[in-house]
Amino acid sequence: MTADDVTLAQLPLREDLRGRSPYGAPQLDVPVRLNTNENPYPPPDELVADVADAARRVAAQLHRYPDRDAVGLRQDLAAYLSESTDVPLTERNLWAANGSNEILQQLLQAFGGPGRTALGFEPSYSMHPIIAAGTRTEWVPAPRRDDFSLDTDQAADLVARSAADVVFLTSPNNPTGGSVPLDGLESVLRVAPGIVVVDEAYAEFSARPSAVRLLDDYPAKLVVSRTMSKAFAFAGGRLGYLAAAPAVVDALQLVRLPYHLSVLTQAAARAALRHADATLASVATLAAERDRVMESLLGLGFTPVPSDANFVLFGRFSDAAAAWQAYVDNGVLIRDVGIAGHLRVSIGTPEENDAFLTASKEVPR
Amino acid sequence: MTADDVTLAQLPLREDLRGRSPYGAPQLDVPVRLNTNENPYPPPDELVADVADAARRVAAQLHRYPDRDAVGLRQDLAAYLSESTDVPLTERNLWAANGSNEILQQLLQAFGGPGRTALGFEPSYSMHPIIAAGTRTEWVPAPRRDDFSLDTDQAADLVARSAADVVFLTSPNNPTGGSVPLDGLESVLRVAPGIVVVDEAYAEFSARPSAVRLLDDYPAKLVVSRTMSKAFAFAGGRLGYLAAAPAVVDALQLVRLPYHLSVLTQAAARAALRHADATLASVATLAAERDRVMESLLGLGFTPVPSDANFVLFGRFSDAAAAWQAYVDNGVLIRDVGIAGHLRVSIGTPEENDAFLTASKEVPR
Repeated sequence: MTADDVTLAQLPLREDLRGRSPYGAPQLDVPVRLNTNENPYPPPDELVADVADAARRVAAQLHRYPDRDAVGLRQDLAAYLSESTDVPLTERNLWAANGSNEILQQLLQAFGGPGRTALGFEPSYSMHPIIAAGTRTEWVPAPRRDDFSLDTDQAADLVARSAADVVFLTSPNNPTGGSVPLDGLESVLRVAPGIVVVDEAYAEFSARPSAVRLLDDYPAKLVVSRTMSKAFAFAGGRLGYLAAAPAVVDALQLVRLPYHLSVLTQAAARAALRHADATLASVATLAAERDRVMESLLGLGFTPVPSDANFVLFGRFSDAAAAWQAYVDNGVLIRDVGIAGHLRVSIGTPEENDAFLTASKEVPR
Repeated sequence: MTADDVTLAQLPLREDLRGRSPYGAPQLDVPVRLNTNENPYPPPDELVADVADAARRVAAQLHRYPDRDAVGLRQDLAAYLSESTDVPLTERNLWAANGSNEILQQLLQAFGGPGRTALGFEPSYSMHPIIAAGTRTEWVPAPRRDDFSLDTDQAADLVARSAADVVFLTSPNNPTGGSVPLDGLESVLRVAPGIVVVDEAYAEFSARPSAVRLLDDYPAKLVVSRTMSKAFAFAGGRLGYLAAAPAVVDALQLVRLPYHLSVLTQAAARAALRHADATLASVATLAAERDRVMESLLGLGFTPVPSDANFVLFGRFSDAAAAWQAYVDNGVLIRDVGIAGHLRVSIGTPEENDAFLTASKEVPR
């Protein structure tokens, strides 16, 4: 037997992992890729030049460990979030990691884990239960309305009766697109027995105020998670962050791997934040295109779910998997998120959206 | 109460984290920093330019997610490791993450966790038990000889009698510096009931053959972890990796966070690997300086522990903490690793080592 001959079944893998498949959307080489909610607009030239300059500067010190606490980056994130939410924040309120997935993993390592539970309203971001499993936190699925919106009164009742250590709320919700008003979030926050994570990965695409406004009212419960992947067009840079009470940041420093953010990540994210105005200019364009795509889908006889994000869930298909394949055959990669009769399309450039709409006329319903 | 007023004690933190302090060496602004085993030589100018070029190239695609499987980087790592160990390897044998800490965390998520145990021979890398705690793996400390070397016969006996799901061996061992011959590693591998992680973070500084040579003999047990932080002078870039049977890589893909390696990390690490010959030229210099520092410490009446790495543990001090402070007062930052009577010094440039040796004449024994 050589190393190549060993199979997964012969390894002493944890029993709860046996038979699982790695998470991830298919990465196919198709002309129009509208499957992972990326921002279709490449970074502006000035940002690219600034990232390269920053990389050159920090590369000269690559032999040294990075600032373990990423203070400068957290200051810049605080400045951005303060300005966009009108809530005064400092670096003590901010924490950053390699993508919001790592933020969520650290939160569950600190506040979840074996013997504890995390509750979320499904369908929602599919990494929530996966990260719960990865941290051995028991996952408690809770329902949404049939139209995928969140019944916040019912949610509050359910959370109040639960002993959930961590509750995930999503606004806007991926993959269905709807967002939750602040008073709805408050209904849940008021009664939650533990931590409430409001996942705002797509917040910039929504006109609703951020849950950051509630931090002073629920400081021992509320965590708002964000990402630079979508609105900031920084998916490749992997930068997630959160806003919370400083004590929450202290808690995460007990579980974070030391030096988790490279000098390149810190420098590139700071460069991207310096160009926030240019990058975020795409947000209005994408929101307008989202509304056009929803209208057009309606016109074609589909039923799009009202979206506040940069994607649209739509139906109905008698066989969503077959329809997904038909889109691929027409050169358009969208996402089958496992909701019967529905598919999800990310909003692209006007040309990409046109290609998607054209293909939509061809696919079997 | 506002967000600033909440204390850690008021948060629903896991009980096992209460009272802990974040891991990390003091980051002090002292002229000579020899405390974290960094490579003192900055990357050569060609490497810095190459990293900047790579950053510029990938920055133009920052709006897209990275290659989730980092195939190109793993190919390059396989080429480097094959050449330096004379063992044929492909990208299927390699896996990479944000520092070897993340590699070890993923290994314990897959093969450790609640209800499982990890065993290590102390004193050793202090992140091993911390990452075990972070993944809720029970930590089983095992002893070394009084001179900090590993008694591999005794270790094999102990591992055979244990039901340890994961055993950590370190070669060279941090913070004591000694390495383990292949037949010693084999004694343990032969009887180990689960996974054996040979942590080779400092392997390039040692003349001993790598445990990679044993992969075909123990394919369902052996994992060799490495880092680019030390020999490659890439601590700021955060790139850890491992070599193992392809099935081990399959297992880690079940627990890794998707898109964990940014496009910048992948591109910068590949640039650094292209300049391996230039960077690794510092290894021989550092090994020679290490031997000089050991000799000089002996001449000064200290007792350095024989080291195969880029650091030296030495004693004896009646009060190691007081001696550490005296070094700082003399402008030299070294590390108090918590071993009674001992301190650890990283090998720096000849000038830095001279400053350390001069200070060594001043400190209280």
